[in-house]
Amino acid sequence: MLQSKILSKTAKEPPKDELSKNARLLEQAGFVQKVLAGVYNYLPLGIRVLHKIENIVRDEMSAISNEMFMPALQPKENWIATGRWQDMDVLFKIKSQHGFEYALGPTHEEIVAPAAKQAIQSYRDLPVSVFQIQTKFRDEPRAKSGLLRGREFRMKDMYSFHTDLADQDKYYETAIQAYKNIFGRVGLKSILTEASGGTFSRFSHEFQIEVPAGEDTIYICQSCGLAKNKEIFGDNTEKCNGCGKSDWRETQAAEVGNIFKLGTKYSKPFELKYLDQDGKEQDVLMGCYGLGTTRLMGVIAEICNDQNGLIWPEAVAPFQLHLLTLQAKDQGTREKISSEAEKLYENLQKQGIEVLLDTRDESAGVKFKDADLIGIPWRAVISEKTLAQNSVELKKRSETKTELVGLNKMVELFAQ
Amino acid sequence: MLQSKILSKTAKEPPKDELSKNARLLEQAGFVQKVLAGVYNYLPLGIRVLHKIENIVRDEMSAISNEMFMPALQPKENWIATGRWQDMDVLFKIKSQHGFEYALGPTHEEIVAPAAKQAIQSYRDLPVSVFQIQTKFRDEPRAKSGLLRGREFRMKDMYSFHTDLADQDKYYETAIQAYKNIFGRVGLKSILTEASGGTFSRFSHEFQIEVPAGEDTIYICQSCGLAKNKEIFGDNTEKCNGCGKSDWRETQAAEVGNIFKLGTKYSKPFELKYLDQDGKEQDVLMGCYGLGTTRLMGVIAEICNDQNGLIWPEAVAPFQLHLLTLQAKDQGTREKISSEAEKLYENLQKQGIEVLLDTRDESAGVKFKDADLIGIPWRAVISEKTLAQNSVELKKRSETKTELVGLNKMVELFAQ
Repeated sequence: MLQSKILSKTAKEPPKDELSKNARLLEQAGFVQKVLAGVYNYLPLGIRVLHKIENIVRDEMSAISNEMFMPALQPKENWIATGRWQDMDVLFKIKSQHGFEYALGPTHEEIVAPAAKQAIQSYRDLPVSVFQIQTKFRDEPRAKSGLLRGREFRMKDMYSFHTDLADQDKYYETAIQAYKNIFGRVGLKSILTEASGGTFSRFSHEFQIEVPAGEDTIYICQSCGLAKNKEIFGDNTEKCNGCGKSDWRETQAAEVGNIFKLGTKYSKPFELKYLDQDGKEQDVLMGCYGLGTTRLMGVIAEICNDQNGLIWPEAVAPFQLHLLTLQAKDQGTREKISSEAEKLYENLQKQGIEVLLDTRDESAGVKFKDADLIGIPWRAVISEKTLAQNSVELKKRSETKTELVGLNKMVELFAQ
Repeated sequence: MLQSKILSKTAKEPPKDELSKNARLLEQAGFVQKVLAGVYNYLPLGIRVLHKIENIVRDEMSAISNEMFMPALQPKENWIATGRWQDMDVLFKIKSQHGFEYALGPTHEEIVAPAAKQAIQSYRDLPVSVFQIQTKFRDEPRAKSGLLRGREFRMKDMYSFHTDLADQDKYYETAIQAYKNIFGRVGLKSILTEASGGTFSRFSHEFQIEVPAGEDTIYICQSCGLAKNKEIFGDNTEKCNGCGKSDWRETQAAEVGNIFKLGTKYSKPFELKYLDQDGKEQDVLMGCYGLGTTRLMGVIAEICNDQNGLIWPEAVAPFQLHLLTLQAKDQGTREKISSEAEKLYENLQKQGIEVLLDTRDESAGVKFKDADLIGIPWRAVISEKTLAQNSVELKKRSETKTELVGLNKMVELFAQ
């Protein structure tokens, strides 16, 4: 992709109206742009990161479930049926000009439970699960945390359906492993955290990432690594459910995933039942499994940076390589630099290597500063000096040392 | 994918509350499920078709533009600025509990024009374009056409920015070619149709697909193939802009794409300007390029079917192959059938071949009927009879003849 065509320019300063580190970094570097508090444009650099995150999520979820897609416009009646039309304070409500009322989906239990009725009749139809990756809406009173708390945001939500608790427990463990895989692949250390469980189970589980900007206070057992959310934590004498010890460390964390056993809370209102082996009607047990993909992008930005800007983990970086040309006084040299850069750019792309090419007529200082802000894992510079040795100057974003690499070695190096 | 896990079952009859052929076919076969008039769940079969369509669109658009992602929640102020808060009758308006008012995006000129200001300052920043693939909302008075007219639907929309008309015209032709590529790849014949142009140009252009359920009446020049929408068609004596002849055929068609030159209609209200080579401020010219991806899925369903159900074109089929096992009386034979089917299923998937596996304990009649409804291009049956010859019975959905193919030949056959 050409840096001149990404409909974003880096800014000299972080935006004055953003308090959160993730929004300050992502906006200054041109990944996102604020439309309203809690509502962002994802510019070409930003959507590439989000797609990479969502593709990892899709990949891991597809191994244990099947994808579907449910609407944002949801019938008021379904929300009345579960009591959440009144009870959920962040619910956006829409009045159509044609007499209908809709909820603008913050979650999809009210859609998936009635949807499943058509497919679930007998115990033979269970267990089954579905997931989606999708935009959600919450009428948040405050939205000052950038991508960590949006009024419009993206989530993966999965719903599972079971005959009994033992079956659900088994699936729950499968989901925990899939979540661990996801966070591992994007380059983060997730902390499985017990949180309040609601009516139908003792705990729910959150996947927390330690970060100062996180809205949750959690207590990590320093002996076995299990954690508890403050909301269910007594005091430091409390025993860990994992190892029985009482050696807690308090820290701030951001919840990036939350998994729940819902019991029959949503199957009952929609009469989602199945016939058991004796031909008797039973309520279906449900589980739900959320993972905020835009929030995850925000958390990565909060963690993966230095004083000069972002440092994307390879798996979610918008590009693998940032290729920069430097100015030269002589017209012939300028043309040589351009043509060599374009040739290399084409050759790398032919091998499926993702490259952002910056041929803008700016000083080395401006271009290096922009490259640091944007935070692509590798930077390669082509200049009069490097061309004299048929080379590029290669540098890792996270390191200071540079090395000369032959122009003809680059494809081989990055194709690995 | 296992047919028992797709959270959908085929229905014996088409849904009684749907009038349109596309909704009747897609619902009966379990691709979509109606949530409200004009609002659908895309079940696992359906989202696979939609993803295939959207990936073709993304691929062709990425060759001429860069992807971004804009929000559905849009500030009222932006819509006031263009006059469309009052003028657009299908606009969903949302009142937040926190004093804000939003439009729920039916289109994104009101977002992309102000967004582009940050990136466009000089003539050197132009031309540039961005596209997105995304959910849109329209408060339609009626929604009786299934996926052809939704209250919630998916679209690709692209916006381009130019210094002058000549530059815009050049890009407009590039976009027309990209659209032709897309419709060609999904297996449809698109008709480039002149339609009313609004204030800033004589015509806009629609991409129409001939189909009886289409809401548009168009006139096709039988000499050169160019078409005109009824809204700008005089009578049969009118001369064709393409070839000068007057040899028109009237037909019904569905508009699946629409491209517009917007002039300065949206750049003026947001003061989207650039400095020209003389340092003088000029208004940016804009173009917009829409393509309805869910509507396209509906049109394909309208066209690609027979009396037994859907017949998906290969490029957008949910799977390449539908693999069915038949019942057998003998327990040992049943197990042999299952294990051979699963082995073949695994081997095909390892080669990246997409297979829907139906091992349900249903009669041959039920399974064949379901396979016809679902409309996967190829059907392979494993039964006691075929196994006696170490074979599957292979049949193309669009043909009646069957042939025995060796179990060990299947991977090779489909890997091509």
